[in-house]
Amino acid sequence: MTTIRIPDFEFTARLARTAGLVRNAGFDVLIVHSNEADFANVRYLSDYWPLFESAGVLVAANGQTRLLIGPESETFARSRTKISDVRKLIEYRESAEPNYPSIKVDTFRTLIQEAVGAEPKRIGIAGWAICPLPVYLGLRESFPKAELVKADEIMFQQRQVKSAAEIACQKEAFRITRIATDEVIKQMRPGMTELEIAGLAQGLIFEHGAECEGLPQYVLSGEASAHAIGRAGYRKIQKGEIVQLNLSARVHGYSTSIGVPVCVGKPSSVTRRLLEFGLKAHQFTKTLMTAGKAAGEVAGRYDEYVKQAGFAPYMLYGPCHGTGMIEVEHPWIESTSCYPLRPGMTFQIDTFFYAPEGSPLAVKNGKVFGLRWENGCLITEAGCELLSPDLTDLAIVEP
Amino acid sequence: MTTIRIPDFEFTARLARTAGLVRNAGFDVLIVHSNEADFANVRYLSDYWPLFESAGVLVAANGQTRLLIGPESETFARSRTKISDVRKLIEYRESAEPNYPSIKVDTFRTLIQEAVGAEPKRIGIAGWAICPLPVYLGLRESFPKAELVKADEIMFQQRQVKSAAEIACQKEAFRITRIATDEVIKQMRPGMTELEIAGLAQGLIFEHGAECEGLPQYVLSGEASAHAIGRAGYRKIQKGEIVQLNLSARVHGYSTSIGVPVCVGKPSSVTRRLLEFGLKAHQFTKTLMTAGKAAGEVAGRYDEYVKQAGFAPYMLYGPCHGTGMIEVEHPWIESTSCYPLRPGMTFQIDTFFYAPEGSPLAVKNGKVFGLRWENGCLITEAGCELLSPDLTDLAIVEP
Repeated sequence: MTTIRIPDFEFTARLARTAGLVRNAGFDVLIVHSNEADFANVRYLSDYWPLFESAGVLVAANGQTRLLIGPESETFARSRTKISDVRKLIEYRESAEPNYPSIKVDTFRTLIQEAVGAEPKRIGIAGWAICPLPVYLGLRESFPKAELVKADEIMFQQRQVKSAAEIACQKEAFRITRIATDEVIKQMRPGMTELEIAGLAQGLIFEHGAECEGLPQYVLSGEASAHAIGRAGYRKIQKGEIVQLNLSARVHGYSTSIGVPVCVGKPSSVTRRLLEFGLKAHQFTKTLMTAGKAAGEVAGRYDEYVKQAGFAPYMLYGPCHGTGMIEVEHPWIESTSCYPLRPGMTFQIDTFFYAPEGSPLAVKNGKVFGLRWENGCLITEAGCELLSPDLTDLAIVEP
Repeated sequence: MTTIRIPDFEFTARLARTAGLVRNAGFDVLIVHSNEADFANVRYLSDYWPLFESAGVLVAANGQTRLLIGPESETFARSRTKISDVRKLIEYRESAEPNYPSIKVDTFRTLIQEAVGAEPKRIGIAGWAICPLPVYLGLRESFPKAELVKADEIMFQQRQVKSAAEIACQKEAFRITRIATDEVIKQMRPGMTELEIAGLAQGLIFEHGAECEGLPQYVLSGEASAHAIGRAGYRKIQKGEIVQLNLSARVHGYSTSIGVPVCVGKPSSVTRRLLEFGLKAHQFTKTLMTAGKAAGEVAGRYDEYVKQAGFAPYMLYGPCHGTGMIEVEHPWIESTSCYPLRPGMTFQIDTFFYAPEGSPLAVKNGKVFGLRWENGCLITEAGCELLSPDLTDLAIVEP
């Protein structure tokens, strides 16, 4: 039983800080949204994380807080939440749309008026990208004169710099993910399906203390090794190809992924060339990650490095994206990024090359393939600290 | 490698039937929505199922179809989709909100005009309960004069009656879930955490051919056995309590759950009384499930049965909800339900009793507890067929 978790006082501090940001932004109240897959904002503030139904957290400028849930989750939500005032609303019900003839629910109108103490004029919404229509239209109808404003920045700015407890959860999740990765590489053999290998990983992360996976275990073989987002399938892995592993664990809401391309049998010289360059570029990225550096400059210098080495046509993604509760979270490091790296920020160094259809390397190799070296890092005053030991070797499974 | 799946021609038929329903409902075009957790509508029409990003399917009255995805999922989506025309839109990006400076995306305006062949006047939206703001507001802004109308009925009416291939997927998922349930009961012992037991179940379902779980494996011990919706946690299971298992597997998009209350050690006479009545009520429900019967009548007769036996204060949920792609899907069987049961409909017979705080049984027992007998059934002309062998015995784990 893992004892590494976010302490209760940190939830109290998060709620108080959020109320301050709500006041500063001139909102009467903020509603954040989460669903089962995209759970982070509600869990950050309440430790509750819905399934089937969705959920919200209300934070008023005056410091009042409410957990908003669907009609079926009450006892479950009460057993998890750090926000004691829990309200059921039909807007958070599951998409099967039950009527619940015997369950009494609250309404946005009475609940928000009571929390705010007046008719709200400006309502912030965070989790805008996943806020569903019933919630938005429910707010709209309840307060036709109020402004409804995207307010993700309030959550982004808090979540992007991690506390000591958050970093401890991340490190624990990386520890578990590394154990699973090493063990899966030991056990995988040609003829196993991607899903069987994913199942192995699932068994291992729970055995070693994860609460669940942080992303569906990526076991992507053959051409699928070039998928930026993917899912394991019923395909059997074969000698002579790359099986891209991005295994993952979650600890108290903090998600990881470690990316390792695994060669089934000795790689061809073409594959090896891209594999080794990918690893070099991954290690180069680490040297760019220092506090004070502009994120856009990291992206620019990475692009330049890859271009000068002649691998620009083979770059699928890089160099980094934010990580924390969701394995991919705000902020990304893109050429358009204009913020400085700060101590306490955590990123995935995500170094992804591929040989796309028709490219010289794919033609030479006889098929499309991809490879991804991925590890977490923490920005410190001195530079950056990896969240899992450095990736240094090619993984080769002897059939 | 399981070969049980939905054949390609069935996707073609679904798309054609949907276009017909779009015409009948007077829409120019229908947009259905899915996310990682609530994947069903997009997968039903395309076989694609997103992660990190969300996704949609466009079906025009004229029969044109498009798969709508986020900027990062292109190769993955193309490897899975049965709809060949795949379009990337920023509205489906992940909630980390990357800018993707180098990826070219489509817009709702040009893409819908081109598919419809004119300015749309009436746009249906299915998956309304999970349709996120960027999609709704994107449609609103692109076509300010168009009506945007909730159109879930188009998907509900198709999905609620299952084809032979769908039933085969469901039966395969039940087969795997039953294996996992039997094996987990064999291996569980006091002192194991709920999450360790959930991990065992995860390993087993992948080993036996599932593509993933249909719901997070419920292993709910002690007071949590009374949670209608729940999650396994780090709690260690203890002698003298109930561990409620609702294990689950998914096969080609079809999800199951089998619910069994497991007694750790011999149950007290109080627990046994509720356990045995629950099982009796579960078996009674089965006798109500016949084609032609009004769903509301099933709910009414069940309520009456429980009331007459004196267990009404202990009923948490029942008698049934629809099942298929999502383990809980439309339609439910509630007192307000006014449709007849039809051959090909599948339901979970979900019989849930509990001893809530302060109730005589909880006081007598010394603590709150719950128990849930759950199994799938298929409505046939003759009555109903269980999707997994009947649940008949109390499961007792000897410590």
